Amino acid sequence: MRQLTVQLEERSYPILIGSGLLAEAPQFFEQYGLTKKSPLLIITDENVAPKYLAGLEQTLRAADYTVVSAVVPSGETSKSLSVYQDMMTVAIEGKLDRSSAIIALGGGVVGDLAGFVAATYMRGIKFVQVPTTILAHDSSVGGKVAVNHPLAKNMIGAFHQPELVLYDVDTLQSLPPRDVSAGLSEMLKHGLIRDEAFAHWCEEHAEELLGLDPEALGYGLERGCGIKAEIVSRDERENGERALLNLGHTIGHAIEAIAGYGEFLHGEAISIGMAGSALLGEKLGAPAGLYDDTVRMLRSLRLPVTMPKHLDTDALMDAMMHDKKFREGHMVFIIPDRIGAARIVKDVPVSAVRDVIELLKEGAE
Amino acid sequence: MRQLTVQLEERSYPILIGSGLLAEAPQFFEQYGLTKKSPLLIITDENVAPKYLAGLEQTLRAADYTVVSAVVPSGETSKSLSVYQDMMTVAIEGKLDRSSAIIALGGGVVGDLAGFVAATYMRGIKFVQVPTTILAHDSSVGGKVAVNHPLAKNMIGAFHQPELVLYDVDTLQSLPPRDVSAGLSEMLKHGLIRDEAFAHWCEEHAEELLGLDPEALGYGLERGCGIKAEIVSRDERENGERALLNLGHTIGHAIEAIAGYGEFLHGEAISIGMAGSALLGEKLGAPAGLYDDTVRMLRSLRLPVTMPKHLDTDALMDAMMHDKKFREGHMVFIIPDRIGAARIVKDVPVSAVRDVIELLKEGAE
Ligand SMILES: NC(=O)c1ccc[n+]([C@@H]2O[C@H](COP(=O)([O-])OP(=O)(O)OC[C@H]3O[C@@H](n4cnc5c(N)ncnc54)[C@H](O)[C@@H]3O)[C@@H](O)[C@H]2O)c1
Ligand SMILES: NC(=O)c1ccc[n+]([C@@H]2O[C@H](COP(=O)([O-])OP(=O)(O)OC[C@H]3O[C@@H](n4cnc5c(N)ncnc54)[C@H](O)[C@@H]3O)[C@@H](O)[C@H]2O)c1
Ligand SMILES: [Zn+2]
Ligand SMILES: [Zn+2]
Repeated sequence: MRQLTVQLEERSYPILIGSGLLAEAPQFFEQYGLTKKSPLLIITDENVAPKYLAGLEQTLRAADYTVVSAVVPSGETSKSLSVYQDMMTVAIEGKLDRSSAIIALGGGVVGDLAGFVAATYMRGIKFVQVPTTILAHDSSVGGKVAVNHPLAKNMIGAFHQPELVLYDVDTLQSLPPRDVSAGLSEMLKHGLIRDEAFAHWCEEHAEELLGLDPEALGYGLERGCGIKAEIVSRDERENGERALLNLGHTIGHAIEAIAGYGEFLHGEAISIGMAGSALLGEKLGAPAGLYDDTVRMLRSLRLPVTMPKHLDTDALMDAMMHDKKFREGHMVFIIPDRIGAARIVKDVPVSAVRDVIELLKEGAE
Repeated sequence: MRQLTVQLEERSYPILIGSGLLAEAPQFFEQYGLTKKSPLLIITDENVAPKYLAGLEQTLRAADYTVVSAVVPSGETSKSLSVYQDMMTVAIEGKLDRSSAIIALGGGVVGDLAGFVAATYMRGIKFVQVPTTILAHDSSVGGKVAVNHPLAKNMIGAFHQPELVLYDVDTLQSLPPRDVSAGLSEMLKHGLIRDEAFAHWCEEHAEELLGLDPEALGYGLERGCGIKAEIVSRDERENGERALLNLGHTIGHAIEAIAGYGEFLHGEAISIGMAGSALLGEKLGAPAGLYDDTVRMLRSLRLPVTMPKHLDTDALMDAMMHDKKFREGHMVFIIPDRIGAARIVKDVPVSAVRDVIELLKEGAE
C-alpha cells in the first residue's frame, strides 16, 4: 500500500492507494474516526453500483456499521441541484445525524456531489472519498466539492476536506478506455504544471497506463496525488498557487458547458484546453516546441487536442467570462512556460484567447 | 452608535447598531474590505424592498459600487432550494466574481438565504448582514446560514461569518407588531439562557420595547447580540456551549414544520418551545415557579405560550427526531435550571417530551 498525507493542520488526512483496500474499509473508517453509532450514507452511481456497492455495504455491515445507500445516474448531469436535493432527502430519511459520514464511492462526479452534500448537510458532516476512476486521483484530493449551475460548471460549492481517501486500484480494472484516457489527462496535467520528469514518465509509460498495469498505475496515481497534495497544503483556498491546477480548465470548462455537459468527458475537455494553453504560452513568449511537445504527450494518452468546429466561438468566450477564474475584470489564465512549469497570468488579452480558440478548431473534423 | 465585536480570530467582525447607518453604508463597506471593482448583490424581500432598497442602491452607486439586486417573496418559504437556485442565477448573470460580496437586507429569512448563497457561490464569497428586524439581532450574528428542506428546517446550510453586521435601528420602525413580538422572543431567550438581570429587564421594559422606543431597543439589541457573540466566540461550530442558543428550538422547529412553514412566526414558535422547556425543567427537578415566571415574561412581550390542539403529537414527535439536536440516538434538549441559566441535557426521556407537548395544548383554543 502506498500512503501520502495532505498536510492541512487539524484538517490533515491520508491518501491510501493499493490493491484490496475496499475489503478493509471498516478498519480504516474506524481508524480515521467514523463512528458506528450513526448511519453512513454511501453515494454512488449506476455504473459503479452493480460492481462494488453490495460488497462495500456487506463489509461495513459485517463490522456493525449502519449503512444507507443512494445510486445516482452516471455522468456530469448528476452534479445538479436537483440530484443534490434528492441526496438531502435520502440523508434525512436515513436519519443521518451530525456524527454521520458520507462515503463517495465513484469517480469525480460522485465525489464532488457527495462532498457538497456532506459540506452542507446539517451545516457539514464528515465524508470519505473512495475513488473508482483515474481522474478521481485529482478530484478526491483537496476538498473542492461542487455541483453545476446550468449557466456554469462548479459554480455552487464549498471547500470541505475528507477524513480519508481510500483508493482501491482494483476497481480501475473495469474502467472503459475513454475514461482511462480522460483520467490520465489530469495525471499528465500534474506533470505539466510542476514536474517535467513526471510528464515525460507519463508519455514513456503511456501504453502501460492505458493497459491499466498495476505497477505503473500505482506510481502514476501516487505522484499525481502527491503533486496535488503539495500544492493544496500550501494554498487550501486558492488564494494563489492552487490556481495552477486549473491548467487547461478555463477553455476546458467552456467546452464542457457549450458542448453540453456529458458530451465531452472532463479530462478530454481539459486536454484540448491544455493544448490551447500551450498555444497561448507560445504567443506570450514561451519557446517554440512547447505546443508540439504538449500535443505529443496528450496524444500518447489517446486524448483529443482539437476542438470541434461546430462549437460557437462567441458562446465559448462568453462561458469563459462566467468562469470563476475571471477576477476583478481581468482574464486570468494558467500559462505554461515550458513542460513542467506553469504560472498564473492575470491579464491575458481576450483577443489572444479568441485566436487560440480558432487555432484549436483547425485540423478538427 | 453602539459597537460590539464577534471575536473569532481571523474571522472576527464588528456589529454596528445605531440610527442612520444605512446612509453611511458605503464608508463601512469600504472600511471592512468590500472592493468597488466587483459587483455587489443585494438580496432583500418584497416587504423590505419598497422601503429601503432604492435608497441603499443609490447610496452605494453614488459611492461607485456596482450593484445588482434581487427581491424574494417575504416569509419562510423563501428559505428553499428553489429560491436559492434563483439567487445563484442572478449572481452569475450579474457577473459576481470571487471578490464580490452579497448584502442581506432584511430579516432572518433574507439573512439565512443570502448567507448560504454567499457561503456556496464560487465556493464562498464575502457577505454583509444588514438586519431590518428585531429577530435578526440573533440570526445576523454567528454565521449560521441555511435553507429549509421540506422535511426539516435549516437542514441545508453552512457556517459562514459575515464581514460586518450593519444594524440601522431606524428600519425597525416599520415592523408589524407581530414581528416585533417575535423578535423580542429571541431577545428574551438570550436573557433566559445566560443573564437573569437582562431577562427581568426585558419584562420590565416590555412596553417600551413593544412601542419601539429607540433607547430601549438599542440597549436590548446590544445586550442580545452581546450574549450571542460571547457564546459564538467560544464555540463557533456548536461542539458544545453554542447549543444553549437552541433553547425552545427543538419544540419550536417541530411546530413550524408541522403547522406548515409561515403559519407561526419563528419567534412565536420558539416562545411556545421555551414555555415547554420550562415545563421540562420542572419535570427534571428545577424549582417550581420556573414555568410561571417564564410564561409571565413571554406574555409581557405578547407572545404565545400554548400550542394549538390540532397539531398532531405524533407528527411533532417525529419532526423532533429529524431535528439536528437528535445526536447519536439520544434526545438532546436545552433545559433551564432557573431564569438566566440553562444547560444541555443529552438523554431526556421521549415520554417526558410527549407529556410536555400535551400540557402545552391545555388552555389553547
Ligand atoms: N473536485 C475537484 O478538485 C475536481 C478535480 C477534477 C475533476 N473534478 C470533477 O470530476 C468529474 C469527472 O470525474 P470522472 O471522470 O471520475 O467522472 P465520473 O465520476 O462521471 O466517472 C466517469 C465514468 O466512469 C464510470 N465509472 C466510475 N468508476 C468506474 C469503475 N470503477 N468501473 C467502471 N466504470 C466506472 C462512471 O459511472 C462514469 O460513467 C467532473 O465533474 C469534474 O468537474 C473535480
Ligand atoms: N441563522 C441564525 O442563527 C438564526 C437565528 C434565529 C433565527 N433564524 C431564522 O430567522 C428567520 C426569522 O427571521 P425574521 O423573523 O426576521 O423573519 P423575516 O425575515 O421573514 O422577517 C419577518 C417579516 O418582517 C418583514 N420585514 C422585515 N423587515 C421589515 C421592516 N423593517 N419593516 C417592515 N417589515 C419588515 C419581512 O418581509 C417578513 O414578512 C427564520 O427563518 C429563522 O430560522 C436564524
Ligand atoms: Zn479537472
Ligand atoms: Zn431562533
